[in-house]
Amino acid sequence: MAGVMRQPCHRYTSTMPRWEPDARQRLVTAALRLFSEQGYDRTTVAEIADAAGLTRSTFFRHFPDKREVLAAGQETLARLFGTGIAAASEHATPLDAVERGLVAAAVAMTPFNRELGPRLQAVVASSTELQERDQLKHIGLAASMADALRARGVPHAVAALAGDIGMLAFNEAYAEWVREENQEDLAELLRSAMSRLRRAATELG
Amino acid sequence: MAGVMRQPCHRYTSTMPRWEPDARQRLVTAALRLFSEQGYDRTTVAEIADAAGLTRSTFFRHFPDKREVLAAGQETLARLFGTGIAAASEHATPLDAVERGLVAAAVAMTPFNRELGPRLQAVVASSTELQERDQLKHIGLAASMADALRARGVPHAVAALAGDIGMLAFNEAYAEWVREENQEDLAELLRSAMSRLRRAATELG
Repeated sequence: MAGVMRQPCHRYTSTMPRWEPDARQRLVTAALRLFSEQGYDRTTVAEIADAAGLTRSTFFRHFPDKREVLAAGQETLARLFGTGIAAASEHATPLDAVERGLVAAAVAMTPFNRELGPRLQAVVASSTELQERDQLKHIGLAASMADALRARGVPHAVAALAGDIGMLAFNEAYAEWVREENQEDLAELLRSAMSRLRRAATELG
Repeated sequence: MAGVMRQPCHRYTSTMPRWEPDARQRLVTAALRLFSEQGYDRTTVAEIADAAGLTRSTFFRHFPDKREVLAAGQETLARLFGTGIAAASEHATPLDAVERGLVAAAVAMTPFNRELGPRLQAVVASSTELQERDQLKHIGLAASMADALRARGVPHAVAALAGDIGMLAFNEAYAEWVREENQEDLAELLRSAMSRLRRAATELG
């Protein structure tokens, strides 16, 4: 999943000094490199900050701890999903609205997100703590889609299911997107994954 | 969710001395009481073992750390879900098989599980770490159902969806079951939850 996204606004923007505009992205890149080279457990916050050319206190303005660095995109993704779902036409079905939310997020993903992908997956796979954080991120994102659907009046259980389907689609499409040989657009991959899952939903019995 | 289940076999049975047949259950009860009284963060493994009248090394024969005490039922539940799903008729649909798995687990739940419920929910709600562990438990259980379905030849995406639906049903039914005024049987509550979710699946669009 996307380590960090180039978004014009996030929680800490207003407190970020002008001279470290890329601090968040630099911290993610440095953390990823150190986690790969020397292992997640053996890497400290001080080392990450140092490798990014920043101070520990700058690190803590962006992240509460080192575990959170690799879940950096979660808030941005949740916001994009929510905005996309809210913007779907009044007549959109729950899954149509979810697809709209996914595509809204896809459009905001950059080559930086794609490049980071394989290294991020390798680092996450190397640490139980990061795997757990990654799973929690997925739950949080599914819940953000379900909440946005409920705000449109979708019944509770339908919204929960549609949010889960949206995350299954996102995970499948993201995994294909970051594969080296892939040439396809993330939005296209998301649409294909959603149509496979729509078919799957008819085979539940 | 069920803190611990009276099951004849689990991972550590063969290493459990005869004179501590209820050690696992006593540790769960003691942990729950201490977490309620003095908070999760301030409770140590030594205190839990002491309150249960056992040693620290007995604690560690049953659980790797204090966080795992409240997820004690996960392996047993996963096994029961899997066995129930495998035993479903050859012609059962994926959701029929899931329902069979859920009912197999319900039948094994005891009054001890039900009594523990409200206190367990309160303790989990009091700690971010326990909430995270609880969410991971839910992901693990959904995955165990999906795996059991795939072993029956259910396609990957259909199995993932059906597993998610099974866990949504389990969570709803369990929450109703442990409510003080509830008089209904867990198996009945699970069947009702499954039928609500089957309806929800037809409204996804």
